[in-house]
Amino acid sequence: MARLSQVFVPKDREFFDLFEEAASNIVRAADMLDQMLGTYPERRELARDILICEQEGDRITHDIIKRLNQTFVTPIDREDILAMASALDDVVDFTEEVADFMGLYRIEAPMEQAQRLAHILLQSSRQIAEAMPRLRVFKDISHYTVEINRLENDGDRVVREALAALFDNGIDPMVVIRWKDIYERLEAAIDATEHVANILEGIVIKNA
Amino acid sequence: MARLSQVFVPKDREFFDLFEEAASNIVRAADMLDQMLGTYPERRELARDILICEQEGDRITHDIIKRLNQTFVTPIDREDILAMASALDDVVDFTEEVADFMGLYRIEAPMEQAQRLAHILLQSSRQIAEAMPRLRVFKDISHYTVEINRLENDGDRVVREALAALFDNGIDPMVVIRWKDIYERLEAAIDATEHVANILEGIVIKNA
Amino acid sequence: MARLSQVFVPKDREFFDLFEEAASNIVRAADMLDQMLGTYPERRELARDILICEQEGDRITHDIIKRLNQTFVTPIDREDILAMASALDDVVDFTEEVADFMGLYRIEAPMEQAQRLAHILLQSSRQIAEAMPRLRVFKDISHYTVEINRLENDGDRVVREALAALFDNGIDPMVVIRWKDIYERLEAAIDATEHVANILEGIVIKNA
Repeated sequence: MARLSQVFVPKDREFFDLFEEAASNIVRAADMLDQMLGTYPERRELARDILICEQEGDRITHDIIKRLNQTFVTPIDREDILAMASALDDVVDFTEEVADFMGLYRIEAPMEQAQRLAHILLQSSRQIAEAMPRLRVFKDISHYTVEINRLENDGDRVVREALAALFDNGIDPMVVIRWKDIYERLEAAIDATEHVANILEGIVIKNA
Repeated sequence: MARLSQVFVPKDREFFDLFEEAASNIVRAADMLDQMLGTYPERRELARDILICEQEGDRITHDIIKRLNQTFVTPIDREDILAMASALDDVVDFTEEVADFMGLYRIEAPMEQAQRLAHILLQSSRQIAEAMPRLRVFKDISHYTVEINRLENDGDRVVREALAALFDNGIDPMVVIRWKDIYERLEAAIDATEHVANILEGIVIKNA
Repeated sequence: MARLSQVFVPKDREFFDLFEEAASNIVRAADMLDQMLGTYPERRELARDILICEQEGDRITHDIIKRLNQTFVTPIDREDILAMASALDDVVDFTEEVADFMGLYRIEAPMEQAQRLAHILLQSSRQIAEAMPRLRVFKDISHYTVEINRLENDGDRVVREALAALFDNGIDPMVVIRWKDIYERLEAAIDATEHVANILEGIVIKNA
């Protein structure tokens, strides 16, 4: 299937273009969140630009599904294209949620661990963007998945440390509830990059 | 595969009957939750009827799996049938949780946003029920998925607004914890209808 | 495919060995959590051994993926092998989280419902381990899934009861936040065993 389409239906390769576009979009959003938290509250208006990334992500997902409806022979299984599109979309969705909830919860100063998590998210998103072009040739991506797993483990440790600190410091319960929510959304964003990596790996394994 | 079964194994079409039954069951549960929250606490005993829907959902899921075990040629891929059954079941499960937690948490008056979310859930469930019969002929359902996505976006906005309001109003932390939980379960129910729509779309794309 | 590999590629059967290893590992972790909570805080150092199980789970998952990359003909679909590996891994991950958060949150005495949930998790994990060998011959496992569903329902009831009790007893909100988190992780671990059972059932249905 894959080979056939490579030879006769070159247009189908546009799925890969769209995946790479989505991956760049993820990096852009994570980069802005990293800047936003790193300088918080000075550049909090970055939340608006991150929202634009989120809408751009929706547009890309929509384009992928539309193309899927119009394409007879796809370079990879249709269900894998759908799963990838949806997993990529999740990353930007969670990234945008973090940015928005900083404002909704009227956070005034970021916790240091939130900054570290945003930075891990950025690094993991970059790994996704670097791995993505290898999908065109179903090249082994284990180098990237190993790194993404490592980042996810780091993130996991930071979240646990952050939650323990919240309770240790005997802060106001309302503050605890807010921050616990934000940490969990940061963790969800990082987990979502790992989910993309797993799907990527699954597709490569299936088609190699 | 699909065509073969249509011609020679008409009984297999019962999967579609069961999916439609599950979709009607979802609408019934969401309709009762909408009424329950809209008139809360007067009709709080509706929680018991919603629990019956939840058990009915389990029965339908069980019937689908039993039939899958007995059927040699299925009209759509076995894994898609399983995924659909499980996604439909999730919607009623979350709907029932919302109803039950209103009582468990001894909520006395509903927040207006919870009423709006229950109404969005009902509308989204109705879209599912309307789209479902199109699965029999693998007809394009994008009209419905667009609407379900729109409803999910609406729901997302209402939840964010509701959470922000909870913290703004400086209410008792115990009240915040309870309501945050209920809003998140309402959101999960709405997300679950979107998940059904995505599976539906995936099946149509694969078989069209 | 399955039959071919049974006859000509006996080495592929090692996927089943790895699944069974993962299932035993799940039982070991759940058993230690059950002991840890049952005697809490005396044997709280068991958290370290449970962490070792979690790392062992990662090693098994990694072995499965490596083998998948090197194997041409697999006894079951590649995506099912991946889904199973990831679902099994989730169970140990959540089990380890519960053990670790008992310490992170400086819990001094366990709630009785947490002990009951750990026990349900152990029973459900044992069902997984007993069902797993049947995968080699794609034998019906509905006996086990029925029992796992029953256990998941039990767990669901215990969690609801536990949450209601937390609020009824008018405890300190910080205590409520902590325990709600631990109950939810216990529930996630039990749900993860049910997810394994669903994947198991899906594979058997597909290959029987």
